Amino acid sequence: MIEQNTSRTELAELGEFGLIEHLTRNIILKNESTITGVGDDAAVIKAGDKHLLISTDLLTEGVHFDLTYTPLKHLGYKAAVVNFSDIAAMNGLPKQITVGISPSNRFSVEALEELYSGIYMACDKYGVDLIGGDTTSSAGNLFIAITVIGEAEFEDITYRNTAKSNDLICVSGDLGGAYMGLLLLEREKQAFIADPNMQPELEGYDYILERQLKPEARIDIVKSLKALGIRPTSMIDISDGLASEIKHICKNSKLGCQIYEEKIPIDITTISMAEEFKMDPTIAALSGGEDYELLFTIKQADYDKIKSLSGISVIGHMTELNEGEYLISRSGTAVELKAQGWDAMKKNED
Amino acid sequence: MIEQNTSRTELAELGEFGLIEHLTRNIILKNESTITGVGDDAAVIKAGDKHLLISTDLLTEGVHFDLTYTPLKHLGYKAAVVNFSDIAAMNGLPKQITVGISPSNRFSVEALEELYSGIYMACDKYGVDLIGGDTTSSAGNLFIAITVIGEAEFEDITYRNTAKSNDLICVSGDLGGAYMGLLLLEREKQAFIADPNMQPELEGYDYILERQLKPEARIDIVKSLKALGIRPTSMIDISDGLASEIKHICKNSKLGCQIYEEKIPIDITTISMAEEFKMDPTIAALSGGEDYELLFTIKQADYDKIKSLSGISVIGHMTELNEGEYLISRSGTAVELKAQGWDAMKKNED
Repeated sequence: MIEQNTSRTELAELGEFGLIEHLTRNIILKNESTITGVGDDAAVIKAGDKHLLISTDLLTEGVHFDLTYTPLKHLGYKAAVVNFSDIAAMNGLPKQITVGISPSNRFSVEALEELYSGIYMACDKYGVDLIGGDTTSSAGNLFIAITVIGEAEFEDITYRNTAKSNDLICVSGDLGGAYMGLLLLEREKQAFIADPNMQPELEGYDYILERQLKPEARIDIVKSLKALGIRPTSMIDISDGLASEIKHICKNSKLGCQIYEEKIPIDITTISMAEEFKMDPTIAALSGGEDYELLFTIKQADYDKIKSLSGISVIGHMTELNEGEYLISRSGTAVELKAQGWDAMKKNED
Repeated sequence: MIEQNTSRTELAELGEFGLIEHLTRNIILKNESTITGVGDDAAVIKAGDKHLLISTDLLTEGVHFDLTYTPLKHLGYKAAVVNFSDIAAMNGLPKQITVGISPSNRFSVEALEELYSGIYMACDKYGVDLIGGDTTSSAGNLFIAITVIGEAEFEDITYRNTAKSNDLICVSGDLGGAYMGLLLLEREKQAFIADPNMQPELEGYDYILERQLKPEARIDIVKSLKALGIRPTSMIDISDGLASEIKHICKNSKLGCQIYEEKIPIDITTISMAEEFKMDPTIAALSGGEDYELLFTIKQADYDKIKSLSGISVIGHMTELNEGEYLISRSGTAVELKAQGWDAMKKNED
């Protein structure tokens, strides 16, 4: 019915970000109410005198989650929270979500109740209304699509492309924990497959398990920054690892950066788990992903204000584009930053 | 980690609508900006002095579409249009969409370009901006999740629960064609499986094939009604068949209805295809689904105005709740209306 294009390019050649860029490269926005489209954590639309933030995230079984070790209630909670995090990344507050789920018949009504109870728990905690969605069956895996609507004052909305050279690079909380939690769960799954009588060894690792299974959106940071009168010059949430996210800010702001390994906040549990896996914890922080902390830049003049906010680490500064993107290691060596973030497109090819 | 509920209720016991009702029955809206949540074609949120309409639809391969006879460009077009139709059903105009897709690796970049070209074609035709989304791989089937944002004046927004007794029941266009198109495509698919050298017999059936593969959202009707000064007292789009949709209006408005078989608009191609399948074309109209026409009620006083609008059929009227929901057949017999609409939950069980 329509002429078919006969050449074939594999999805993996472009990767997730490349694919989105490729498929959306020719968009010309038509409506006056569309302020910002594809390319940031959320789109911005104007409605009368207000501005709304809109973001959609998909979670697919076998790619984003493994039901052998993810309780459905946790999955629902996380699916909602990662969407709230996209609104936090724009310096806004989440207000509504729609939820589309596509379960196969192996799910019972009770299983979906568990999933929804997690979604509702997140909605209650963050003051968000579930306003709609769709429920349809799947011939195979479980699929969850959530769209979140958030609010922000227009002048508070924070993009990825507005950092300036010499701005300070800040990160909330600590990094790498969610990834180490994932590795631990995968290890125990393999041990269980090898010997179903084995009891999982999870004791003492509550922190990293919670980081993986029950992350939070840093709406508290959005509120604290506003209370302190700090308007970040750019912001993004850390879903794919610090390296990938800082590179997004660099690319979109047409700048370089220097971050200091010794300044990257990493929890002691993350470090000891990394040691067990004979892995450098800095790698977990740079490339692990799913921490859902906020990465943002501020003017140097705001340094004294940010110092007063606990749980924020200043890890480096933005530089000019031609200065490149570098990690300064503990030994003082400058290493070029590579994004080897958790890429949903590539993961499925293993 | 959380106590597990041990009883098991199959999804099919509730069906799609029952499941949504069940999972959302305890929602208490928290935000002032949330005007209407789950339960209509779209949710309504207030943003300053404006009102926005939000709706999400999922399409899953093997349930909503069959790629053996659905060109990807048509699929993209339809996926967008069925969402625009939800906004039309609220008497609004679609303005933005987000698109989430989850293709497996058997899809090439070129295949996704085809899919997106259909989405963009629909966006161009309806003046809608694609503002965001998510692209992630799937371990199995293709999923498409679209959220649409629409606008309407607050006083124009039309719900399902506001029909009044004696209001006239109107329908746009004609019904049953999309379903007969689907049956034709399924028949030719089976014939092709039996004998791959066979050429499909599709000639003369362009109309019903287009109804199935390239439906339109009746935004033109929304505009015409406004131009004529007619504000429908209730409205819904026909995605699951006339019977199912009129029953939604009856249930939500706490009313009954009488519709007249002879008044139901059915195209001649639909009738002749139904004859070939030895099927009553009225059944296709009542239960076929996917026509994406608008079903709405108007005050009796608006009858003269609606007569001037071509392509609208007045098919009956609303009655009191205790009068029930009836189809008056050509022979004058009153038959109780049953919803046997195309139910995405049940279809997958065949």
